[in-house]
Amino acid sequence: MDAPQVKALLFDVFGTVVDWRTTVIREGQAISQSTGCQVDWGQFADMWRKEGYLAQIFRIARGEQQYEKVDVLHRRKLDLLLAEHHVAGLSEEEILHFNRVWHRLQPWPDAVPGLARLRTKFLVAPLSNGDFILLTNMAKHGGLLWDCILSSDMFQKFKPNRDIYLEAAKLLDLAPAEVMMVAAHVVDLEAARSVGMRTAYVDRPLEFGPEGVRESPSKTPFDVSATSFVELADKLKA
Amino acid sequence: MDAPQVKALLFDVFGTVVDWRTTVIREGQAISQSTGCQVDWGQFADMWRKEGYLAQIFRIARGEQQYEKVDVLHRRKLDLLLAEHHVAGLSEEEILHFNRVWHRLQPWPDAVPGLARLRTKFLVAPLSNGDFILLTNMAKHGGLLWDCILSSDMFQKFKPNRDIYLEAAKLLDLAPAEVMMVAAHVVDLEAARSVGMRTAYVDRPLEFGPEGVRESPSKTPFDVSATSFVELADKLKA
Repeated sequence: MDAPQVKALLFDVFGTVVDWRTTVIREGQAISQSTGCQVDWGQFADMWRKEGYLAQIFRIARGEQQYEKVDVLHRRKLDLLLAEHHVAGLSEEEILHFNRVWHRLQPWPDAVPGLARLRTKFLVAPLSNGDFILLTNMAKHGGLLWDCILSSDMFQKFKPNRDIYLEAAKLLDLAPAEVMMVAAHVVDLEAARSVGMRTAYVDRPLEFGPEGVRESPSKTPFDVSATSFVELADKLKA
Repeated sequence: MDAPQVKALLFDVFGTVVDWRTTVIREGQAISQSTGCQVDWGQFADMWRKEGYLAQIFRIARGEQQYEKVDVLHRRKLDLLLAEHHVAGLSEEEILHFNRVWHRLQPWPDAVPGLARLRTKFLVAPLSNGDFILLTNMAKHGGLLWDCILSSDMFQKFKPNRDIYLEAAKLLDLAPAEVMMVAAHVVDLEAARSVGMRTAYVDRPLEFGPEGVRESPSKTPFDVSATSFVELADKLKA
């Protein structure tokens, strides 16, 4: 029996679709310019991401910590980081604006043209640990033409909790095997595969910067592997 | 104190954005052509809409009936209507396809150009009693560039249940007063207003056909009133 046809591509977003590190650094540098505070914004971005977000969502995904929105997780860590790095002189409105830098992340250069092609053949949507409004604002800001938004706060769960993949497929009225998860992260794809979804790995070597840690390869190959969304479109004949 | 600025427009869909009646009639006529069954498709469409959908969702919204997806409600009534009208010779696949005519409804002629303008100034999304995948498919089919999809099955509730308006605003991280509901139906707008949303009435005199019942005017005027999405864009300076 042939495998069911893939009808929807669901995308991890942070790191896979958008270059969070470069955007955070750029907005941080503008803060240095206006306040005169000198900060290593690369390190700031990495800590914000790793400790303020990744560590939190993995704990929540494992059920060790209560669910909270990403905007809330980001803000808690931002307040600590601003204090640690002695960034002073920002108003509450400016801090709130900087916290929403995650709503304004720039897509990788291939993301918009690749998605435009993939969208002609497949239903395309984020399935991200970001909040619904964060992903909606980001799409509008970056010109990402999703068909719909699938977010952690819709399900009150974070990937790699398996339920979020299953609930997303259910909302799309698709069997898991009709859905392909696209991500630059092995743990995300392995969770998607464990519920029966197809998988596409997109390599993003610069996610954590030129000196940053690289994604470790998966022991089991994924269905498709590409270095950009344009190559993914080629491989999926979109 | 000035009223808060409106940031998002939420749209009723069936009747307000799309012309369900004409689309159902057109696909019904194609069935008559292929099967030879003669049917008054205008009456068929009206009964499907009124008894198979409206009567059901109002009962569910009042808590008198358990929540079910719109695709399921539509299918139950479709099976009855096909039998009543002696439509024979359709395969299960063809019936399933016809049931999904509601995923393929054509927008009113002003809807796409009006939305394109409104989208430059506001977050635009459906807030519809349709299912998530129904609205997603319809947007793709009709070229409606929503920023995100807000559907009844996300909340397991139907308008005019007040909770669905509040939960939608919460997911958008907006106060109700920052949201404007756009609809051709007074009951929808009155429920939105009751939770603090702004309201825009769009007149759709042909929703139930040239001979069909017209929407009764509201006793209290809405914030904006227009005869098309293009006029709405003019009035909202988009």
